[in-house]
Amino acid sequence: MTTFESIAPQLESLAIEVPSWAYGNSGTRFKVFGTPGTPRTVAEKIADAAQVHRYTGAAPTVALHIPWDVSDDYAALRRYAEGLGVGLGTVNSNTFQDDAYKFGSLTAADPAARRQAIDHHLRCIEIMDATGSRDLKIWLADGSNYPGQNDLRQRQDTLAESLAEIYAQLGDEQRLVLEYKFFEPAFYATDVPDWGTSYAHVAALGDRATVCLDTGHHAPGTNIEFIVMQLLRLGKLGAFDFNSRFYADDDLIVGAADPFQLFRILFEVVRGGGLDPEAGVAFMLDQCHNVEDKIPGQIRSVLNVQEMATRALLVDRDALAAAQAANDVLGANAVLMDAFYTDVRPSLASWRESRGLPADPMAAFAASGYLQQIAADRVGGTQAGWGA
Amino acid sequence: MTTFESIAPQLESLAIEVPSWAYGNSGTRFKVFGTPGTPRTVAEKIADAAQVHRYTGAAPTVALHIPWDVSDDYAALRRYAEGLGVGLGTVNSNTFQDDAYKFGSLTAADPAARRQAIDHHLRCIEIMDATGSRDLKIWLADGSNYPGQNDLRQRQDTLAESLAEIYAQLGDEQRLVLEYKFFEPAFYATDVPDWGTSYAHVAALGDRATVCLDTGHHAPGTNIEFIVMQLLRLGKLGAFDFNSRFYADDDLIVGAADPFQLFRILFEVVRGGGLDPEAGVAFMLDQCHNVEDKIPGQIRSVLNVQEMATRALLVDRDALAAAQAANDVLGANAVLMDAFYTDVRPSLASWRESRGLPADPMAAFAASGYLQQIAADRVGGTQAGWGA
Amino acid sequence: MTTFESIAPQLESLAIEVPSWAYGNSGTRFKVFGTPGTPRTVAEKIADAAQVHRYTGAAPTVALHIPWDVSDDYAALRRYAEGLGVGLGTVNSNTFQDDAYKFGSLTAADPAARRQAIDHHLRCIEIMDATGSRDLKIWLADGSNYPGQNDLRQRQDTLAESLAEIYAQLGDEQRLVLEYKFFEPAFYATDVPDWGTSYAHVAALGDRATVCLDTGHHAPGTNIEFIVMQLLRLGKLGAFDFNSRFYADDDLIVGAADPFQLFRILFEVVRGGGLDPEAGVAFMLDQCHNVEDKIPGQIRSVLNVQEMATRALLVDRDALAAAQAANDVLGANAVLMDAFYTDVRPSLASWRESRGLPADPMAAFAASGYLQQIAADRVGGTQAGWGA
Amino acid sequence: MTTFESIAPQLESLAIEVPSWAYGNSGTRFKVFGTPGTPRTVAEKIADAAQVHRYTGAAPTVALHIPWDVSDDYAALRRYAEGLGVGLGTVNSNTFQDDAYKFGSLTAADPAARRQAIDHHLRCIEIMDATGSRDLKIWLADGSNYPGQNDLRQRQDTLAESLAEIYAQLGDEQRLVLEYKFFEPAFYATDVPDWGTSYAHVAALGDRATVCLDTGHHAPGTNIEFIVMQLLRLGKLGAFDFNSRFYADDDLIVGAADPFQLFRILFEVVRGGGLDPEAGVAFMLDQCHNVEDKIPGQIRSVLNVQEMATRALLVDRDALAAAQAANDVLGANAVLMDAFYTDVRPSLASWRESRGLPADPMAAFAASGYLQQIAADRVGGTQAGWGA
Repeated sequence: MTTFESIAPQLESLAIEVPSWAYGNSGTRFKVFGTPGTPRTVAEKIADAAQVHRYTGAAPTVALHIPWDVSDDYAALRRYAEGLGVGLGTVNSNTFQDDAYKFGSLTAADPAARRQAIDHHLRCIEIMDATGSRDLKIWLADGSNYPGQNDLRQRQDTLAESLAEIYAQLGDEQRLVLEYKFFEPAFYATDVPDWGTSYAHVAALGDRATVCLDTGHHAPGTNIEFIVMQLLRLGKLGAFDFNSRFYADDDLIVGAADPFQLFRILFEVVRGGGLDPEAGVAFMLDQCHNVEDKIPGQIRSVLNVQEMATRALLVDRDALAAAQAANDVLGANAVLMDAFYTDVRPSLASWRESRGLPADPMAAFAASGYLQQIAADRVGGTQAGWGA
Repeated sequence: MTTFESIAPQLESLAIEVPSWAYGNSGTRFKVFGTPGTPRTVAEKIADAAQVHRYTGAAPTVALHIPWDVSDDYAALRRYAEGLGVGLGTVNSNTFQDDAYKFGSLTAADPAARRQAIDHHLRCIEIMDATGSRDLKIWLADGSNYPGQNDLRQRQDTLAESLAEIYAQLGDEQRLVLEYKFFEPAFYATDVPDWGTSYAHVAALGDRATVCLDTGHHAPGTNIEFIVMQLLRLGKLGAFDFNSRFYADDDLIVGAADPFQLFRILFEVVRGGGLDPEAGVAFMLDQCHNVEDKIPGQIRSVLNVQEMATRALLVDRDALAAAQAANDVLGANAVLMDAFYTDVRPSLASWRESRGLPADPMAAFAASGYLQQIAADRVGGTQAGWGA
Repeated sequence: MTTFESIAPQLESLAIEVPSWAYGNSGTRFKVFGTPGTPRTVAEKIADAAQVHRYTGAAPTVALHIPWDVSDDYAALRRYAEGLGVGLGTVNSNTFQDDAYKFGSLTAADPAARRQAIDHHLRCIEIMDATGSRDLKIWLADGSNYPGQNDLRQRQDTLAESLAEIYAQLGDEQRLVLEYKFFEPAFYATDVPDWGTSYAHVAALGDRATVCLDTGHHAPGTNIEFIVMQLLRLGKLGAFDFNSRFYADDDLIVGAADPFQLFRILFEVVRGGGLDPEAGVAFMLDQCHNVEDKIPGQIRSVLNVQEMATRALLVDRDALAAAQAANDVLGANAVLMDAFYTDVRPSLASWRESRGLPADPMAAFAASGYLQQIAADRVGGTQAGWGA
Repeated sequence: MTTFESIAPQLESLAIEVPSWAYGNSGTRFKVFGTPGTPRTVAEKIADAAQVHRYTGAAPTVALHIPWDVSDDYAALRRYAEGLGVGLGTVNSNTFQDDAYKFGSLTAADPAARRQAIDHHLRCIEIMDATGSRDLKIWLADGSNYPGQNDLRQRQDTLAESLAEIYAQLGDEQRLVLEYKFFEPAFYATDVPDWGTSYAHVAALGDRATVCLDTGHHAPGTNIEFIVMQLLRLGKLGAFDFNSRFYADDDLIVGAADPFQLFRILFEVVRGGGLDPEAGVAFMLDQCHNVEDKIPGQIRSVLNVQEMATRALLVDRDALAAAQAANDVLGANAVLMDAFYTDVRPSLASWRESRGLPADPMAAFAASGYLQQIAADRVGGTQAGWGA
């Protein structure tokens, strides 16, 4: 049996990066609902993100999205964030909201569009130098809606060339993380649709290129924890984008749709050594709080990952191995389920208090009046959003 | 064997309604790309729609979306359309883009939101009186993103009450058509998610309430032609929203993703008598031309339905029945496939010419210079779109 | 807050029927693995089923499958079962393993096949009279593998006639329960593929015809708890076939694949009054223990339903209603999640002991040596199985 | 424009291997229906397969399944086949029907099971030496039904070791082809579930290891032609197992469920050079004729591939490239659709006759009386089947 005390040290090193864009408005193609208090600037987004870390102690860095978070002084932005107790993290590039990218960016047959997209990534690397970010995360919206629209093969070759040029500009301590996605916004063929494609590209690039796994970017029924296991085995799991889904890329709060799946994913992370800091696996949220409050939505998400990682760490690995060796199907499954059904919340509440954090971060944040304060303060201006 | 000549009369009565919103900009939550020449007004949308009918002879009416197509004089709008050779068709209500509907419209627990939504539909019926429209089509975005967010049962009961109040206001020649959708924009529970729910509601309302089947609104793998057959059998198939999909509600050109599925659907329409005008089945397009030209996209769609209906009509029903009666699996399937693989395009080209239409509507429209003209003419103003 | 004590009385009336066939061998089209001790006779199946009730106190009846469980003296079989502490429950008809049904049974165009299928159901009703069973459950394998193979519409009409003849023979206290299934063994069209089709048929039959919902019989992503809610609302939820799935109709142990889904389903049962005995909802298992031990697999399943029903009953309905009324998305969701994450196992262990049952039914059964005993005793003969 | 004459030479070299097991009985877990005339021996299977080649001229080899097709004299079997005008092709191993493999074969933690499975493959290589077969195809049923049942990571490592031992025994002209499958018969985790996993393994093995793509082995909605393109690009597409599906691994006749998908797949084969003999892509059928006649089912399948390859070859590649370069979405799609909607059947009928083959292979076979003959001749004995 595994005790909470024995696994607590590993929890201390579990850091979940939050994305700047989670604090802006998001929605669907049908409607984006605004909310009083939504940030108008990068600084306000970072201020909101700092609240998540303040109440959870587990969200020490904020990911940026370029150009949503462009600044004329990244060093100052970094100091500002640090003043609020958080650091700047992964830089996410955006090559899907300029008219030039209507028919592709890094994969485009059109040299001008491709050039613009590559240059955008080179600019992102400069920003990383200023912010001290380790990871450049690339998610491509590139794809097509109709069979025949694109030459699928040409686009893979073009992508390989584009990535190679970007990779060559990375510093020795910097990494390229390539995300894949099943579909959307392309509705026929997506140029990086699955982990195999992402893996083939990063394997060709080199050691500092890895795969980003977004938990919402798979076909229905996909066994995601298997992919986690395989990428860890291949040494190519660079990052997670956490969220959850019932249908497509719903971008709901991580753990909200299928908590048992999150448990299985985190168990494979534990099993494969992915919680060790030297494994280099970045844990990030990437969600859309369309109808719920954004900061509490992020706090809830950080807690969900933390609680579920606790359950995953509590699995009695010796008992599991023994049952597996005996082909005791029900016994092995029961070892896993026992950890999943353990109510870890009281232990975590005590542990938080012992670290100077609120036992119940959700309640503490609600009591703080922060939401009311920003709703009163942030009047006028243009609320941040995806810009679609 | 069935000849083209024998089925041509049925093609003459095949009318495909086009939606006004297909001519405005559409996109995804990531980006809406604009196009030169996109209409700024309802009148311009109708003008574009009239082009589709001009070149195909098969798209005689235009569906409206309220409030996207609000007008202060619907009678004048009707005359304007008729002057262009088309009529005004189905009125589609919109209860998803007002802040009041963030947590529901006709299903809302909040009486004010619900009242506003009902009143909006009553206003739509007044518009129908002015435009001479037969059908009020209701598609609800109502739903929830998280388990527990809504009381699912309460919302069904509330919906039933709301629909009853709307239904009571319909004229004797008017109909209510209730559309269902698997998911989006709600990502946990949609309040009218499947044909069974829509059927249960319209069966409770009465004879002038029927179901609208959108071909993109089903779970993966759903046998849509079975539902077509069942709704025709139950006397409750009121309308189609045609489009196609590879993944979710992609809203691609009808027939683009799975032409054989469209064939099977149209064969069940034929089999079930749905092409008979007295069956009262409305055929409409409901698509998003995100990256392709809009008017040619609509022409292509009308032609796809027309060509596939031709193939469906060409099925040798006697040979099929004989093979089915003999449990000749391969033989029965072959009868269907023979019609599907028949190249009906030459026959249709001749038939069009015999009716004073261009043999190749796509080429004729392209040669007309209309797209270049509107790109030059429609400068300034705000391009129409979904408004999200 | 809801206490365990307050909901315990409802748990006492929660009865989960077990299927006789769960104790025989099952497998896939690739291989059926046998196990020492597998029953050879109906009596041995019932003896195994009685073990499940002995250790859980929650599985008081055994469902029969005809002709797998044919007997020349059902009254004697009933007494035998009662002597072991269990009753005989639902009678399940089988119209998929006779060569006559290759192209359909109740839906067949062939009058001889259809007659045989109807007569089989009339025989099942006679058996019900002898066993005292209330429910006749009909699951049809009828369907087709290729478009055109069958006339889909004819088969619906034929099915309606067949069901009407069967329904007419039911006694006043007997019911017909019609199950639906998305696909398999038919791979193109299934004749009762969704709840809407089953609902349309049972609504036409009358009050004593209801729908059976098998939790593994839906398209990917289907919101099953919504269907539970809707059928309860329409007064037509007759029975559950419990199991779980990751992919298709995997027939895994209920709650094994997605425990949170089982929770949501049971919450809608509670919400809709489905746990009240007068609601007439039968709870049954329908699973395949292909690689795990069968009796412990059934005990585990009964416990899973019992534990999850406990969590569903523990939901603080007042707090939920308040949060829903306030459109507090995160708050309402949190009420549900709080119950889900509560570890109900200690309370249930105590409660079992207070009722004279073992605190840990799995451990108690394992310690009993029953599996070793039947492995030693049941030598020779033909192990029961699906007979494919 | 591309003419039939210009592409006919490529059709001549298109060979589609047929599997011996297609002529035996197959079915579902619910029922396997027998048919008069079903082969009892390997020789009878090969005789049936020879009929397919006789009438189509496009199915020159027969794949074997070991141990279903064990023989005590493979050289004699080879001569027998050659006497009937066909060769012996791919050897398919079977490690899913021995009780030893209940919990895995090449992936098993149990050394004895793993040893047996490796030895079975070494024996298959000996058979290949005798039959002159080039390819050893490995499809593994290995997997688990419940989370925790297996150590997923251990099994990947074990699999890599097992494959390396087998690969080392291959002759210089022999290849290992590793098939992947989404699910079934394992219902939680399959050990080779996707192309990425298969690719990672064969890349580690060496040049003579490639991937087998079965068109029915993907998650719902997967863009299969993308994978075809990618594997050709990576030089790792070794073989196809053709069939079609509406739901899971339905194993229907190739092209029956989604003919347009088959067209897109074959277009990517053409685009990527996969029809060139030096590409080394093997085209094989792998289907289950559960309810239809088997030999005509195979003939229909060979014709479907041939007809669709013809359409794929007819695509006007220059026009396509021009439209793609101009980002003419509708134009590029139209080039593809024009080829798809071309009725190639008359051209193929003439071409067949010019090569001394029947214009209509289905009709010619039906007229031959072969089915009636084998039904009369093959009396007694045990019909071949999967043996489940």
